[in-house]
Amino acid sequence: MKKLAVLLSCCLYAICIQSETLSSPDGRITLDFSLTGDGKPQYSLQYDGKPVVQPSTLGFDLTDGRSLKDGFDIASVSTSHTDRTWKPVWGEVSEIRDKFNEMSVDLLHKPDSVKIVLRFRLFDDGLGFRYEFPKQQNLSYFRVSNELTEFRLAGDHKTFWIPANFDSNEYYYTTSKFSEIDARSADGRGIGTHKIASPTGVQSPLMMKSSDGLYINIFEAALADYPAMHLNADTSALSLNVLLAPDAYGTKAYLQTPCKTPWRTVIVSDDATDILASKTILNLNEPCKIEDTGFIKPQKYVGVWWEMHVPLHGSWNYADIGNIKLDSVDWNKLVPNGRHAANTVNVKKYIDFAAEHGFSSVLVEGWNVGWEDWAGNWKEEVFDFVTPYPDFDIAELSEYAKSKGVKLMMHHETSGSASNYERRLDEAVDFMKKYGYDAVKTGYVGWIIPRGEAHDGQWMVNHYSRVIKKMAENDIMINQHEPVRPTGQHRTYPNLMACEAARGNEFNAWSYGNPPEHETILPFTRLMGGPMDYTPGIFEIKMSAYQSGNDCQVHTTLAKQLALYVTMYSPLQMAADLPENYEKHPDAFKFIEDVAVDWDDTKILEAEPGDYITIARKAKGSEEWFVGAITDENPRETDIPLSFLDKGKKYIATIYSDAANAHWKDNPKAYKITTRTITSKSKLKLKLACGGGCAISLRPRP
Amino acid sequence: MKKLAVLLSCCLYAICIQSETLSSPDGRITLDFSLTGDGKPQYSLQYDGKPVVQPSTLGFDLTDGRSLKDGFDIASVSTSHTDRTWKPVWGEVSEIRDKFNEMSVDLLHKPDSVKIVLRFRLFDDGLGFRYEFPKQQNLSYFRVSNELTEFRLAGDHKTFWIPANFDSNEYYYTTSKFSEIDARSADGRGIGTHKIASPTGVQSPLMMKSSDGLYINIFEAALADYPAMHLNADTSALSLNVLLAPDAYGTKAYLQTPCKTPWRTVIVSDDATDILASKTILNLNEPCKIEDTGFIKPQKYVGVWWEMHVPLHGSWNYADIGNIKLDSVDWNKLVPNGRHAANTVNVKKYIDFAAEHGFSSVLVEGWNVGWEDWAGNWKEEVFDFVTPYPDFDIAELSEYAKSKGVKLMMHHETSGSASNYERRLDEAVDFMKKYGYDAVKTGYVGWIIPRGEAHDGQWMVNHYSRVIKKMAENDIMINQHEPVRPTGQHRTYPNLMACEAARGNEFNAWSYGNPPEHETILPFTRLMGGPMDYTPGIFEIKMSAYQSGNDCQVHTTLAKQLALYVTMYSPLQMAADLPENYEKHPDAFKFIEDVAVDWDDTKILEAEPGDYITIARKAKGSEEWFVGAITDENPRETDIPLSFLDKGKKYIATIYSDAANAHWKDNPKAYKITTRTITSKSKLKLKLACGGGCAISLRPRP
Repeated sequence: MKKLAVLLSCCLYAICIQSETLSSPDGRITLDFSLTGDGKPQYSLQYDGKPVVQPSTLGFDLTDGRSLKDGFDIASVSTSHTDRTWKPVWGEVSEIRDKFNEMSVDLLHKPDSVKIVLRFRLFDDGLGFRYEFPKQQNLSYFRVSNELTEFRLAGDHKTFWIPANFDSNEYYYTTSKFSEIDARSADGRGIGTHKIASPTGVQSPLMMKSSDGLYINIFEAALADYPAMHLNADTSALSLNVLLAPDAYGTKAYLQTPCKTPWRTVIVSDDATDILASKTILNLNEPCKIEDTGFIKPQKYVGVWWEMHVPLHGSWNYADIGNIKLDSVDWNKLVPNGRHAANTVNVKKYIDFAAEHGFSSVLVEGWNVGWEDWAGNWKEEVFDFVTPYPDFDIAELSEYAKSKGVKLMMHHETSGSASNYERRLDEAVDFMKKYGYDAVKTGYVGWIIPRGEAHDGQWMVNHYSRVIKKMAENDIMINQHEPVRPTGQHRTYPNLMACEAARGNEFNAWSYGNPPEHETILPFTRLMGGPMDYTPGIFEIKMSAYQSGNDCQVHTTLAKQLALYVTMYSPLQMAADLPENYEKHPDAFKFIEDVAVDWDDTKILEAEPGDYITIARKAKGSEEWFVGAITDENPRETDIPLSFLDKGKKYIATIYSDAANAHWKDNPKAYKITTRTITSKSKLKLKLACGGGCAISLRPRP
Repeated sequence: MKKLAVLLSCCLYAICIQSETLSSPDGRITLDFSLTGDGKPQYSLQYDGKPVVQPSTLGFDLTDGRSLKDGFDIASVSTSHTDRTWKPVWGEVSEIRDKFNEMSVDLLHKPDSVKIVLRFRLFDDGLGFRYEFPKQQNLSYFRVSNELTEFRLAGDHKTFWIPANFDSNEYYYTTSKFSEIDARSADGRGIGTHKIASPTGVQSPLMMKSSDGLYINIFEAALADYPAMHLNADTSALSLNVLLAPDAYGTKAYLQTPCKTPWRTVIVSDDATDILASKTILNLNEPCKIEDTGFIKPQKYVGVWWEMHVPLHGSWNYADIGNIKLDSVDWNKLVPNGRHAANTVNVKKYIDFAAEHGFSSVLVEGWNVGWEDWAGNWKEEVFDFVTPYPDFDIAELSEYAKSKGVKLMMHHETSGSASNYERRLDEAVDFMKKYGYDAVKTGYVGWIIPRGEAHDGQWMVNHYSRVIKKMAENDIMINQHEPVRPTGQHRTYPNLMACEAARGNEFNAWSYGNPPEHETILPFTRLMGGPMDYTPGIFEIKMSAYQSGNDCQVHTTLAKQLALYVTMYSPLQMAADLPENYEKHPDAFKFIEDVAVDWDDTKILEAEPGDYITIARKAKGSEEWFVGAITDENPRETDIPLSFLDKGKKYIATIYSDAANAHWKDNPKAYKITTRTITSKSKLKLKLACGGGCAISLRPRP
């Protein structure tokens, strides 16, 4: 008997080390999957034969002591090919091709007969894979103490990183060798929830460039009921491990079969523009679940907002008192501070401006009671979302906006108190519907309540989903600030128009700001998962205009602010500056008035993370194109071929460019506007100043 | 200058050790308050000159490192006397006297100029004191890491304790010397959240008896926005320290000025009946905040409930499958298990029974989807509170109940998932109103979600309050199971009819059960804070009647089950047994039909914790009295003087007593019913069996 057993175990061993290979439809990317001798699953990825991910392990540790990382058998393997197209409700293109080869590996964990399916999808621009836990006898409820997914790199890549922090992604990027990642060195100034998750932890999407010219982006898609994927760098071994936000008990995820993890993605190309053009994250998300999407309207908006950021201007709060309790304040008896921006007169000014210049909506922050002590106190009952300040006449303003054909945009700042928001949400939504709001900006500034949870933990991921769904059920669009960064769910819930979830333009008003390269990195990182409400369009660049001696400023030229409307894709774009600042530059403002927010086509013309990006987009249902070109702190000259234009057609190009003497620091507001007639055979020579940019509209000549 | 400073500081020092004394209105209780040399506040309490609390310290540690335990000056002291009466919406008496002497001590914490007010109230039966933090410059938001309140005892008292557990109070009591408290020895069988908070931690109310005959009860009143007060015993020093449930960060309370702690109470007497008659806990709560209390109706009810506890009977769940997700089950396609108790036919049977026998309501548990895997999985989306099982026709049943003049009582089991309940609460309340429900039983079986919170922590204390208020706003009565134990808030929110928050009768159906002494201790402990939904009235005492060989049983005689309707005060009393069991004993059931649930007067005739209790109560707006007498495992004979009856009036006494051969274990169902004509001069000789009791109704002879 003993001999037979040995023989049998050898046979099993032979099965164990079985290896499977999958190729992308164009054959340039290959994936190898295998089990090691002890039944450990591992995968590796190659691009044109070059290693992208070296053999890396997969698996989980559970809180009950079980380890789902070795002891596996392959029960079966199946492969398939898919090639389909779908139309997004809004987007950078009108139609998206979803073409991939798939391999699903059914694994059996021998010690406890647990079944896991590993599903790999290879697209022409990269890999997506996830773990699936089918409904089964031996696994119903389980808790993840660690996900063991590895990404072992093939070199010491140039890496664009921000530190892993489970409660904020509002950092500027550090560019370093992978081996030099040091999250402790990250600049936390101005970030209220600055707390490093690990000395070498970084956030995903993580953008890297190998010494032999491969652009590699590691991220995830379709995050749901699971913590966001951060990454812990082993700077010696040049590898990354999944790093997840724990809850109060150190548990990463509470799962119930059937369930699946988000997709882990590796997008790779030898051309940086392919990274920006990739639709893999979207393709890995579920199709739209909103039946009637008629209420979803890509749009530009203005708002009572930037004036609370710039020095010596308005305030969110109505009174200057530091300690209030919602249920015991007689708001009518408070002494107003005289700076409260969300007052009826001021909001009417914005409504008038929006109506005059064709903006759909007016965001008003600070309209509701509670701003006196909203931040930094970890206060639970911080806002009620239904009580306006005495000087904000919501009934009158709703009527007034309606009469002008403009919508008011609701603002729900939670101060991180998600539990408070959830229990008041039904009432808050009823209130919105009563006053005709169809869009809401949510905010999560501060540490989370329920205490013990984090912005990027499983509970909060579920919270954001719940709010998105609740808004969808009520025909309301949503724009999230300080949420977990998006991972393409706007395919499934296209009422999620945009998120912040990164360091936005606001940091330029009151902090060290955003380095000139910032906007050339964001599309390679944060925007991989979805549109950002970056709030571009700042014309009054220097804060010294408001307060003598204040040296804060936007770290771009004015022309670059225009270009951002094209390079920083979003179906919801704010013209963030004050109306009076726009009124000083009506010629430049014309570009913001004209630029589209929804597109039939997009061409990534050139791109290099940290250096420059040039993008052309064709407006939805129109023959107009818009081009944006931006550079980092260095000046740049470039020739833009216009071959994407219709052959033989003539276009009038209006070119909003940096003046010859422009400079983000020394002379940011120097711009010039020229027009030319061009065709698809034309080339445009663009000169970008240090920290500069160029915006172009291309209209068919009548 | 230096000399003057020394002199001045000597003067201040002299002020520091200033001592203050306060007496109760009747002069029997005295309180001493002083600051020690280093400015540490301390208090002591005497009863008739005997020490009850030896000098004990007061104060707090804060999470920011500040210590509010010494370094205090007394800024001022004021005293006052109050004598007033108020009428509860329902209760044991129609009018309550609130008579006390008060001393408030304004303390100044010298290191940081923080102001604290210590407010002491001395009643004739004990002390209440609390900490108040006025609104002030130097203290707005602060976090308590420890409350340092001490209770230093004067002896090694006989103590009736259950172990401190921040997530359950469903223990039976251990009676031991104080020095022998050992929470680790507590029997956790049958308690899903058995977790001892400290090796010598005990719960409050803590009932003790000194060797010289003083009855001492340590508790709290008006718990709000603060964790419940557990107590850590120092068994050598014979002292108790406040022990509070921490949150995920170890923080006990997040506070914002102005605020106050709950009252800490020491009720003391040389007569045990005074402890049961005390109204101090109620007096320390705020007056009623519900404007129109017309919807609040003390009542008796029956329900689809006990049949799920007894062996081989009904189930809460509709199908026998162990792993469901609310949003992906087609309930109509599930295979029913055939035992689902909350089905339309069965509920109608209960409605008919309620109508026939004069019960106001029918509780139905297990009516809503989700019970297939509701317990033990720490599942968040466990119930939706609005979807009935396919066999529960809520529209038909609502109509049927209405036609019979009976109300259905809603059941909201949360499984501890309070976050899920909160976000669905508005919808759940709308649903209740749609179907005419005016009362709800809530349940919190299991570990709490938000994870990191506990049943007895600050967040959950606020949760229960929120739910009580929400129900009050919607004219709904509430009966909480597995909440934090009550501390008299039903004065303020009298729609809080009853709570469980202790080991109820249900444990007798499927566990070691409740020892015969259990019901003689509960009124001295759990019931000090408010009525308990103990669910008395079990006639089929032994579970072997349902399942041969099953040795679980109720640990009382049938007559004692009747007596509990009087000794265990509640305005909401269930007749918990199955209709068919009542139909077998219509003569005994008559007492349950007759007994009142709201009272004009109450006389605690005799009481000894752990041994016996006899109480007489006069029905609200009626000349009828009801008497209940219970004993522990020992038989008992007692002569009840009836001097509380109207002089000269004749009454017919119907006496429901144990038969001569009755015994809780050997012959529990042996009872006899006799009638006598009596007057206020009569004495009733009662004979109680081992684990027995006696119930008496006294009606004026027509």
